[in-house]
Amino acid sequence: MERQTMFAAIKERMPEKRYIHTIGVMETAIRLANQYDESPKKAEIAAIFHDIAKYADVAWMKQVVTDQQLDARLLDWDAEILHGPVGAWIVETEFQINDEAILNAIRYHTTGRANMTTFEKIIYVADMIEPNRKFLGVEELRTLADISLEDAFRACVTHTLSFLVSSQQAIYPVSIECYNSLIREE
Amino acid sequence: MERQTMFAAIKERMPEKRYIHTIGVMETAIRLANQYDESPKKAEIAAIFHDIAKYADVAWMKQVVTDQQLDARLLDWDAEILHGPVGAWIVETEFQINDEAILNAIRYHTTGRANMTTFEKIIYVADMIEPNRKFLGVEELRTLADISLEDAFRACVTHTLSFLVSSQQAIYPVSIECYNSLIREE
Repeated sequence: MERQTMFAAIKERMPEKRYIHTIGVMETAIRLANQYDESPKKAEIAAIFHDIAKYADVAWMKQVVTDQQLDARLLDWDAEILHGPVGAWIVETEFQINDEAILNAIRYHTTGRANMTTFEKIIYVADMIEPNRKFLGVEELRTLADISLEDAFRACVTHTLSFLVSSQQAIYPVSIECYNSLIREE
Repeated sequence: MERQTMFAAIKERMPEKRYIHTIGVMETAIRLANQYDESPKKAEIAAIFHDIAKYADVAWMKQVVTDQQLDARLLDWDAEILHGPVGAWIVETEFQINDEAILNAIRYHTTGRANMTTFEKIIYVADMIEPNRKFLGVEELRTLADISLEDAFRACVTHTLSFLVSSQQAIYPVSIECYNSLIREE
């Protein structure tokens, strides 16, 4: 699929700021894919589409979860958790992308999951460290990503969990499965 | 059950330091029970027995989990997570204590669970703030427990989660269910 076609498809579904973020994720994901021996073309596609459902209607997304028999736990959660799995479904059905690596990277880019693939880690990390991100600690994560994808991924997951706890936000159980799988593979 | 009988039963199953901790939990739990309108006698029993399985053999505890059909997720975890549920089973079968409030307080004193009762929160908090505990922040938790059990419990759960993440330890999923239920009841 042509890059410009994909750009047009996402641009109308998100505010300018999210579009700029998406370009940043794309550039970062392509760079990481080249560095860590994954397909830069797949990284481009997954990155461009990763937030396609970010601003979709929550009630509609829950209907998709029900109709498509996605993980029923999703029904208790908001757009932040829903947009990954529902985004993957949109990309598959509306854009006929059937590559499971791409779909899983979109599906799990926010929550992570246990035993993620290198490609999924690239999209997860790129989403956190792309150049427009500004949070305390992001520079350390960027530096780490240049050296080791595994270490960067683990640091990103830990950073996200710490942030959620310190800001007293609920934690999706799949994120804990992701974290625990990292701790246990040590 | 007489206090001295219970003391004798636990003393032979734990090192001196853990026994002293147990006395501290008992005194704190009785005080909190009086303050927050729960039974001090039940608090005494739950506190004395809460760590009865802390030094039990892990393989034996896993056998109990299997034989008694306790939560199968426990089989992936060590004594830190096993000793609550297995301790409750010991207290029920060996000491004929059938009070569900006491048993649940022992069962969930380490992990917590979603929608805990006031009595369960008392044992959980007492375990964390008893006078022999020495960790950064324990004084704030003690002060909070004098003012509000709910606030103290939430602070204890948050402190535990933060500690586990910052020290890169695995998190039992039931602890996240506990944390999420607190965030959502706000």
